[in-house]
Amino acid sequence: MGDSFKIAKRCGSTFICVNELANYCIDRGFKAHNMHIGGGHVFSFGRVKFTIAHHGSKTPDNQYVGEPAGFILTIKNKNIYYTGDTGLFYDMKLIGEMHPVDFMLVPIGDNFTMGIPDAVKAIEFVNPKLVIPMHYNTWPVINADPYEFKKKAEGKGINCRVLNFGEEIEL
Amino acid sequence: MGDSFKIAKRCGSTFICVNELANYCIDRGFKAHNMHIGGGHVFSFGRVKFTIAHHGSKTPDNQYVGEPAGFILTIKNKNIYYTGDTGLFYDMKLIGEMHPVDFMLVPIGDNFTMGIPDAVKAIEFVNPKLVIPMHYNTWPVINADPYEFKKKAEGKGINCRVLNFGEEIEL
Amino acid sequence: MGDSFKIAKRCGSTFICVNELANYCIDRGFKAHNMHIGGGHVFSFGRVKFTIAHHGSKTPDNQYVGEPAGFILTIKNKNIYYTGDTGLFYDMKLIGEMHPVDFMLVPIGDNFTMGIPDAVKAIEFVNPKLVIPMHYNTWPVINADPYEFKKKAEGKGINCRVLNFGEEIEL
Repeated sequence: MGDSFKIAKRCGSTFICVNELANYCIDRGFKAHNMHIGGGHVFSFGRVKFTIAHHGSKTPDNQYVGEPAGFILTIKNKNIYYTGDTGLFYDMKLIGEMHPVDFMLVPIGDNFTMGIPDAVKAIEFVNPKLVIPMHYNTWPVINADPYEFKKKAEGKGINCRVLNFGEEIEL
Repeated sequence: MGDSFKIAKRCGSTFICVNELANYCIDRGFKAHNMHIGGGHVFSFGRVKFTIAHHGSKTPDNQYVGEPAGFILTIKNKNIYYTGDTGLFYDMKLIGEMHPVDFMLVPIGDNFTMGIPDAVKAIEFVNPKLVIPMHYNTWPVINADPYEFKKKAEGKGINCRVLNFGEEIEL
Repeated sequence: MGDSFKIAKRCGSTFICVNELANYCIDRGFKAHNMHIGGGHVFSFGRVKFTIAHHGSKTPDNQYVGEPAGFILTIKNKNIYYTGDTGLFYDMKLIGEMHPVDFMLVPIGDNFTMGIPDAVKAIEFVNPKLVIPMHYNTWPVINADPYEFKKKAEGKGINCRVLNFGEEIEL
């Protein structure tokens, strides 16, 4: 959950989550929109559709809050695919076919998620216009070289942008 | 769970569920046959095989009861594929190849499950002889037009039957 | 969990598990290396990579401990793919493509996991050099004939070795 409850309290945010996690937020006094994997909904800011992820999902107080998920965020006809923490899976190809992806965020850190070889396969499946690697170098166990990934992505004809900590990008 | 405990108490039913949910039922004094995804078993009424579903699964008293699942029910050489609440996934194609499907029930309501475009892809994968849409119009957030789905299904050469509330069908 | 806690106490073992299960072990005073599906890590004895499995996962004291998983164990350039308890799924094909599999252990007992027809499809997807069937004949509900599986595997050109209870094999 990280700092999300603190931010939500300050901003009065609505959580958009899979059903069990949304109920967890509601039970703690927050606003939420309950959804689930494969489901999409149009909000004021754009469309959110939850996607399959293969990982786990548990709260700091040890509760199951539904299956893990990624999402596709559609804003002004651009599709952003945030895979979530996940291993590689073949349905990514289907996700890319059903929703041509402009921007994709993909984990490369290994150990908890895909490492670089699987992430390269993932972008071959999805074929995004631009990929941004994530989920690496936070701890030693997920050390990975984003520039090695960038080189391999570009070798497959896919643009890659490595972001520095705190750096912003206009999509 | 809905009204299933009430019905089971009245009828002395046996729950056929994934292992964790079956144990949950047994712990509450009910009979159950424990199974799991990909596993099949022949009962007096026919064969049940549990299938992959991408969704969540939690009881009203907040317990994890195993992964969500759909099932294939085989009676008199007819295969009925009930997908369960789920997003679209590519293994549906494999399910259809391993078990030619006569009747398929597929969600179309979006938000919590597949919406119409993904449900049309699902029936292309499975290629059932007849499809019945489900899981729509219960709440505003899952409003969907079953006749729009029917038209698109028939455009793919797949028969579709829209059932009214309470309507029965002989398969 | 079976006898794993007893063995770990005696041997001072480290559990290598998906994150939630690893934390469960750590909370009970054991050593663990936390990983997750799709993630790999090099240990002193070889490399472990967790793979997708479609099943459930709960501890004897009723706690959710993350998604179920299989793994690929790489020792001396040999890949051993232990599918875990699971139904058949199409990503097995991808697993076999990303990691040419020397030895595969696959369930054949049905009811809780794949039965023989799906296990035959699984080995067609993975194409291991040798397959060993597992997870059968422990209880009547998972009775299956490993020699029927062996015959079908060999019919697909895949070597199969049926192990007796307690028998060891040098890979």
